[in-house]
Amino acid sequence: MSTNDKDAGQGLTEQVVASFAATPDARLRTLMQSLVRHLHAFVSEVEPTEAEWMAAIRFLTDTGKMCDDLVRQEFILLSDTLGVSMLVDAINHRYATGATDTTVFGPFYIRGMPERAYGENMAFSPGTPALVHGRVLSTDGTPIEGAVLDVWQTAENGMYSGQDTAQPHGNLRGRFRSDAEGRYAISTIVPVSYPIPTDGPVGRMLDATGRHPWRPAHLHFMIDAPQHRKLVTHLFDEADPYLKSDAVFGVKPSLMVAYRERAADHELARRFGFDGPFREARYDFVLDLDRS
Amino acid sequence: MSTNDKDAGQGLTEQVVASFAATPDARLRTLMQSLVRHLHAFVSEVEPTEAEWMAAIRFLTDTGKMCDDLVRQEFILLSDTLGVSMLVDAINHRYATGATDTTVFGPFYIRGMPERAYGENMAFSPGTPALVHGRVLSTDGTPIEGAVLDVWQTAENGMYSGQDTAQPHGNLRGRFRSDAEGRYAISTIVPVSYPIPTDGPVGRMLDATGRHPWRPAHLHFMIDAPQHRKLVTHLFDEADPYLKSDAVFGVKPSLMVAYRERAADHELARRFGFDGPFREARYDFVLDLDRS
Repeated sequence: MSTNDKDAGQGLTEQVVASFAATPDARLRTLMQSLVRHLHAFVSEVEPTEAEWMAAIRFLTDTGKMCDDLVRQEFILLSDTLGVSMLVDAINHRYATGATDTTVFGPFYIRGMPERAYGENMAFSPGTPALVHGRVLSTDGTPIEGAVLDVWQTAENGMYSGQDTAQPHGNLRGRFRSDAEGRYAISTIVPVSYPIPTDGPVGRMLDATGRHPWRPAHLHFMIDAPQHRKLVTHLFDEADPYLKSDAVFGVKPSLMVAYRERAADHELARRFGFDGPFREARYDFVLDLDRS
Repeated sequence: MSTNDKDAGQGLTEQVVASFAATPDARLRTLMQSLVRHLHAFVSEVEPTEAEWMAAIRFLTDTGKMCDDLVRQEFILLSDTLGVSMLVDAINHRYATGATDTTVFGPFYIRGMPERAYGENMAFSPGTPALVHGRVLSTDGTPIEGAVLDVWQTAENGMYSGQDTAQPHGNLRGRFRSDAEGRYAISTIVPVSYPIPTDGPVGRMLDATGRHPWRPAHLHFMIDAPQHRKLVTHLFDEADPYLKSDAVFGVKPSLMVAYRERAADHELARRFGFDGPFREARYDFVLDLDRS
């Protein structure tokens, strides 16, 4: 009477693939049919019990429910911690062009943060004062004027403004613009390493698998300039202990900077208004020409 | 300067797999490492743009947000429409034992529905009256007394009670018990084919891929008896036009029944209280012994 057997799965996979054969959009058809084959291959390989499959359904449901519209996107966090975000990043920026390397966008960007002047301070919470500066260049070395550098980082408590509603609006966020020589300058604090949020399904996954949730200290950049491809990247502190075990696999050797100690009487102190010792980090960004 | 290249993805996959190497639970380690390999293989094959990947993140988020605690489980619906639920079913019921075939559980079961007597009516909304009856047997042919048959089906509007809050509590749901000869009997209405819910992400996926949302008419059964494995299955109406294109791939040839026309003076009419023409469907369930 039973028609279930070892081969039932294979016939089923082909039946499901065939059900997408009439998808009008050819790209969507490719995506869905490939998804079905890989998803079924995974399930056929691990042979989940029904209880395990229900646990997966609950995990995905909880992950969706953890998301809000503003600063918590648990599915991006899941994609990040499974290395999928960095894989998509690698696929979409695979050709060596001389441009600055990209890394994950992360879930904590907020649109429309304050525009800030050259060298303006964006830190309204405690920390080690720092100047981050350098130039924005095109791949042929030409300075880019008017590039918009959207910058964000956590406070010393490891949380981003927005995520941590106790921080003032726009704390450690801002949009800077490069000048006629392509120069940019940001007064801020030295970033700290911090754990990704662990109070949701992704945190439970990391805990159950013996993984730590820490990200090495970094500053986020999204840089936009006319005629160039948008650059989404981080600058990492080269002294951070988590560089080799970033919870989201985002570190690339080319994206490290040193935060050098500078005394209160350093020439940059007066120019940028530091009234005590501070750190200085320099980095030149190189943007790829937009070929699309 | 760029370290991105064609091979970046492979090194990354191995790095992510390695990050799960210290998972204390061996089974969880296997699941996560296999998931990472298959997920990365899918992404590497289709090479999503960043916009496509964000669309996937949004789709999964919307799917989670569509779920409620009672009757709407959009991730089960997604698993069903991608054929994964039936694959898990096949994997967990692969050995031919002579027991009745299983099929998908579906997202609309509600626990704790009314206990009903032998032959009691569970339909409190319009439809074609029907008697569904037969026996519950063990694989050696022995009748099983006291098996609990938890039964549910949609009303003629295609919706389940609970899902459709206008229906009376317990409409077209109930728990029946087999008698000393293993017999069960249910007074109800003939089930209708119906579309799975299309007002969420899964509905949009079916629409975009040219798939219809219809399921062939069926009655759900979850049957539980001492010393036997729980049976989750459907009985399909063998006359249904959607048997070959079930939106959730749940149909098996062994699970079809005929709803035969019976006149008002048929011997069963008086016994079960039908006061006009009705339909009769007969099916014997066979439960597997619990070997665990």
